[in-house]
This record gives sequence, structure tokens and C-alpha cells, in this order.
Amino acid sequence: MTSFRVGLLGHGTVGAAFAALLAERAEAVAAATGRRPELSGILTRSQGHFEEILERSDVVVELIGGVEPAREYALAALRSGRHVVSANKQLLSQHGEELFDAAREAGVDLRFEAAVGGVVPVIRVVHETLAAAHVERVHGIVNGTTNFILTEMTRTGASYPDALADAQRLGYAEADPRDDVNGRDAAAKMAILARLAFGAAVALDQVAYEGIEHVTADDIAYARELGLSLKLVGTAERVDGGLSVRVHPAFLYAGHPLASVDGSFNAVTVESPAITEITLSGPGAGGSQTASAVLGDVVSAMLPPATPPARAAPVTIVGDVESAFYLHLEVADRPGVLAQIAEILGLQGVSVKSVVQRGLGSDARLTIVVHSVRESRFLAAVALIGRLDFLRVPPRWIRVIEEVFG
Amino acid sequence: MTSFRVGLLGHGTVGAAFAALLAERAEAVAAATGRRPELSGILTRSQGHFEEILERSDVVVELIGGVEPAREYALAALRSGRHVVSANKQLLSQHGEELFDAAREAGVDLRFEAAVGGVVPVIRVVHETLAAAHVERVHGIVNGTTNFILTEMTRTGASYPDALADAQRLGYAEADPRDDVNGRDAAAKMAILARLAFGAAVALDQVAYEGIEHVTADDIAYARELGLSLKLVGTAERVDGGLSVRVHPAFLYAGHPLASVDGSFNAVTVESPAITEITLSGPGAGGSQTASAVLGDVVSAMLPPATPPARAAPVTIVGDVESAFYLHLEVADRPGVLAQIAEILGLQGVSVKSVVQRGLGSDARLTIVVHSVRESRFLAAVALIGRLDFLRVPPRWIRVIEEVFG
Repeated sequence: MTSFRVGLLGHGTVGAAFAALLAERAEAVAAATGRRPELSGILTRSQGHFEEILERSDVVVELIGGVEPAREYALAALRSGRHVVSANKQLLSQHGEELFDAAREAGVDLRFEAAVGGVVPVIRVVHETLAAAHVERVHGIVNGTTNFILTEMTRTGASYPDALADAQRLGYAEADPRDDVNGRDAAAKMAILARLAFGAAVALDQVAYEGIEHVTADDIAYARELGLSLKLVGTAERVDGGLSVRVHPAFLYAGHPLASVDGSFNAVTVESPAITEITLSGPGAGGSQTASAVLGDVVSAMLPPATPPARAAPVTIVGDVESAFYLHLEVADRPGVLAQIAEILGLQGVSVKSVVQRGLGSDARLTIVVHSVRESRFLAAVALIGRLDFLRVPPRWIRVIEEVFG
Repeated sequence: MTSFRVGLLGHGTVGAAFAALLAERAEAVAAATGRRPELSGILTRSQGHFEEILERSDVVVELIGGVEPAREYALAALRSGRHVVSANKQLLSQHGEELFDAAREAGVDLRFEAAVGGVVPVIRVVHETLAAAHVERVHGIVNGTTNFILTEMTRTGASYPDALADAQRLGYAEADPRDDVNGRDAAAKMAILARLAFGAAVALDQVAYEGIEHVTADDIAYARELGLSLKLVGTAERVDGGLSVRVHPAFLYAGHPLASVDGSFNAVTVESPAITEITLSGPGAGGSQTASAVLGDVVSAMLPPATPPARAAPVTIVGDVESAFYLHLEVADRPGVLAQIAEILGLQGVSVKSVVQRGLGSDARLTIVVHSVRESRFLAAVALIGRLDFLRVPPRWIRVIEEVFG
């Protein structure tokens, strides 16, 4: 199997996470693409030479951040026929056209999924899927720090300074949070999204932005009574034959797909007459999320143009899986009923999470939710319960899906 | 500019919508890809010859549905070196391996975004973006008919037969809804997703499925008191070194990303340790949505492997856009205050949607939401209001984003 050589520029939080993930996923990527990815060199401030790493690489992964020398390295890599993957929103929003031109001329790939939306594949979806659609508007929550702060202010009634301090303490805001809280980080991301959604170059200084520094807990509380929730929203839309690209705090009605995006999550809604709207959401940029998005771009650069899935592996289908359950029982209301039911559940290893009893006398109803348990155990308990003489109708049950990773 | 010839098999609702969309978007697609798409032939039951259309096509778009002759045509097209785009979940879930093998051997593209999730690009995201991630679990609401019925039962308390009849009357359920309501349609889609997420061939008869025919409005109501909402959920997950792929009604807690997916919408959540979870949502399959997903696949098949965005077009940035607004005023509570404010707003063409007044005497507060209006008009009104002598502090305002397409 041939190898695919990955040159890494930068070895901070994301760079180190990427190098670890690449090693961990090398076998799986080789199975999917037919080529084995390997790290051909790492450039840091204190070690490595760019030209030597470039010489040994098929793709250059730029994780230095900032404009220079990232721009110089990316251009040199593209011009020498290397694919480039970058997570650098400053670079893409300020020098995107220069980089796109260089990639187009060299016939190589330039990918930057990690620059916007963390692990949410918004770049890919806007660029590729929607090439066929006429996009009218993109709304995005594209800064996890500000969304975390606003969520905390909403949840606890905290003031902006207190919520910011909390975010810093918990690692959701940097020591110098200026570019996050003043909206500039989101503005750079919206410039990139506008470029892809509308095919028009939007310079960062054409994006009007406001931050969240002047938001008061009072306004959040008053507006909540009207069913509104506050987010820092980026908007790129067609207006009067032109475009408007902007970032500002905005209230959303409960029905809006972005209204329920809380904490440090990112989300983007794309509107188009043919499709009404698509929403993508997921965690914002942490080190491992960003590394995962970068590796996704590397894999895309490795894939040949026509890419049906690799040959299928053999698999075992598992039948008896675990689930939580809702159990509904209609019972005669006499002493010991609940005790007998609880005993049967307990003997089968089924643990009760909540019970609600309603009604009286011969019309009592029990609504029970049990914790996750192997399906066969739960069904065995239900079969036993079904034989109890105080049951007025057969038991009814429905599965319950617990929180994600809950 | 060279052309890209599209042969269309099938001319029902989706086929006709696709042909119309292709004509409408031809210029935009040509600008994005450098090739002009044109319809080279249409095969219907009564007209056209498959071999002739194949001969004249670079891509064959299969919108016949069902297994035969769709399978025979798709295989013939792949083996003769044509890209194939299909919206056919039966075909992909039952004969996917045979088709993937043929595409791999011929080195052509086989795409089927429209087969799962309507316009939500779940195939692309699971197949390409997540090639780099180890997927643990996929949850999906992948049948719009059943989600519509369950949403109606929840909203109105209707019985299953009544909600089904409503869905049929409104066009959300077919005259023969069997494969939707018994879970089989969702099972086929989950088999396709499992194939892409786990690289393992899952036959449709290995997918356990239950439908929604036995769900009662009572269960929905009781569980709602516990904060649970009912969905028909497809699950594909790694269990004990094997896989479980299944479809059944399941309750979700309010915090689950799928809990708020209502009406005929589809949504998919992908969980992986490195990324926690990504959620994609959007309208389920209607004719125009499916056509849009199909065209997206055609565009992808047209794009050369390295695809930086096309050269940017010139653009006008529009500054003064329309928005709804929240306006917060702290006023002395004396007669005529509200009238004066309303008059100023009215003179600037700003129309009030809601007003809430709180407090008494010198501590009165007005919270006003106004309908969408050009920003300059609203700011002019705020400037005038700011000069009123009964205002105790300067006015505060925040933009309000109205419902999508509202």
C-alpha cells in the first residue's frame, strides 16, 4: 500500500491533537482510502525546516494560525502542487481569493472545514451540497465562547462580567477574549460562509459586527417572557440585488432552529426556496473536535474523485441491546400492587427511574420509567407482570432514549 | 464550454421536478463547475430507449424507484463507465454491495444523497466527513410521514387513525401508507446509513423494525408529563463488537437533539467520542427537496477532484437591512407616555407587534417588539424617543430574528 505523506505546520493544542488522532486512525483511513497516512514532518517555532517538510509531503496541514507566515507557507505549498488543509479563519477570511486562485491554478485541493463551525461540516455542505441550490440566507451561531456566556446569563441570571469570568474559569473563554466577545471572530467565519454560499468575495472589513459586551441580564429576562432567547447570530443574505453580511446579538423565537442551540455548541441554518432550510449543529471548536475536522479534510484530499464506499467488512448483528423503557400499567388500586411490580422488576435487574400513579380505585394507572437494561431482561419482567391478576389490561411499553452520552 | 450530459430515467413527481430544476440552475452549475449540464434523454414507461439514452449520457439519474428494472439500468450504466445518481432506497438497501462493486471497478461515481433524509446531506456527511472519525452510534428520524403523524397526535391529542387520515388529506401520507407507518421505509434508510457509518453490509432483513400503528394518544400524553416526546427513531450502533440496526417508536428527553424535530422534518444525529455529536436536520422528502438533493449529487459528479470555489463574482454589500427589534424603555409612569412612543414609531413606519408594561410610578418599564422594518427607520425612531423627557435611561434595543420564511 502506498503512503500519503502529511506535513504538519504548528504543534499547539490542535496540532498535537491532530498528530495523535492521525496515528490512532491511520489503519481506518488506509482501509477507507487505499493509502496509509503518515506524518512526514512537523514544523514548530523551534524546530523543522519548511522547505524540507514541503519536499516530503503530499498534503500540508497548516495549524499555525494568524496571517504570516501561514499565508506564505500555504501559498508555497499550493504552488508546488501540494494539497493544503487549514483551520485558519483569519487567513481564509482575509486572503481567501489569493489561496483559491493558487489552488485552482495548481489543480490541487484546499480545504478548511475546521475554520468554521468546529466539527460541524458546514463548509462542505455549503460548498458542495448546495452548489445546486440558490441560497437566500445563512444564519449561524459560529462562536462557542459567546454562546456559552449567553446561555449562562439566561440560565442563571448572571451579569455579563460574571458569566465571562465563569467561561474563562471553565476553559470556554481565553484569557484575552476580545475577538470572541466583540464579534470579530464570528465576522471572519461569516465572511468565509458568504464566499461559499454566494460565490462572492466578502472582505472582513465589509462585515458589520457587534459583540455581546453590552447585553444585560435584564433584557434577557424580559425578552424571555415574550418567548425570545438571545444569541450572537451571524447573518449572510441576499438583499436588494446585493449581500448583507453581519454579526450581532439577536433574539430568536422558540420555533427557530437556532433557538435551542445552547452552551458552547455551534449551528448553521441555510435557507433556500427549493429546500426551505437545513440546520447543522454540533460542538464548537475544542482541540479534539478541530483535529477531527482537519483529519476529515485530509481524508477528502486523499480520496480519488469517484469514491464509492470501500468493500464491506463482515459484521455480527446484535439483537438483544440495552435500552431504557416507559411502562404503562392499568391496575386495581389495592395494597401491595406497587411492591409486587417493583419486586418483579428488581428480580430481573430492572432499575426504576420514576413512577407516576394516577387515578383511584379500579381506575389506577402507573407510568414507570426504568433505567437502561438489556431488552430481554425487561421483556421477561413485563411477561411476569402481565400475569398479575390485578392488571386490568395488558402492559404497554415503549423504549426511551437517554441523553446523548448520558 | 463543454457540456455534461444527464440521462434521466423516470419522469414522475421527482423526475419532473428534477428536469425543471436542472433547466433553472444550468447557468449557475456551469459557473460552478465549468461544464454546462444538459438533459440528453428521458426514459418513461411509454417512451425512450435505455441504450440510446445511456450512449448519450455522462451521468445517469435513476428516479424509477423499486428494484427492477432500476437495478439492471444502474448496473449497466456503471459498467459502461457512466456516473450514476439514484434516489432509490430500496435499490441501495437491497443491492448496495453489487452497485458499489460495479462503481469501484469502473472508477465512476455512485451517489444517492436523496435516498435518505430528504435534502439533509446525511449521506455525504456520514460517508466523507466522518471517514476520519470512529462512529459509535447514529440516531435518525428518517421518515417524514410518521414524524408528521406523531407530531399531530402530540399536538392535538388525536388518535392514530385520525392523525393518519389528516396526514393523507394534507399529502404527508400516501393512500397506501403501509411501508411508512410499519417502519420498513425507515429500516431501509437505516441499513444504508449503517453501511456508510460502519463500513459493514447490513441487509434489510437484519434490521428489526416496529411501526407506530399501536401508539396511543394516552401514552404520548402520560409521557409528556415526564418531559418525554415520542418519535419513530432509527438506531445503528456498535454493541459488543457487533452492530445493532433497528427502528422503533422511542421516547426522547427534552434535551435530546432529535426531541424538537417536528412535523415532516427529518434529522440525524451522529455520535463519536472525538466529536461528541453532530445533528443535521431539514425537511423530509418532497418533490422539490428530493430534486434538489439529486441535482447536488449530479454537481458533485461533475466536479473535478480538486475543487476550490470558482472565481469570485463582484458584489454589492448592503448596509441598511430589515429586521424586527426588541426595544426596552424605562419611563416615568404618567399619562400619554405610551401614546407618544407609539406615535414616533408610527411616523417612522415602525409597526408594533407586542408591548409589555411592568412596574409602577417612577419605575415603569416598557418592553416593545416591533415588526420587521428597515434598520435606519427604527434607529431614527429610537433617536427621537431617546430625547423624550420622561425617559429615565437611554433606550436599549436588540434585533429579533423572525421565524424562518416567516
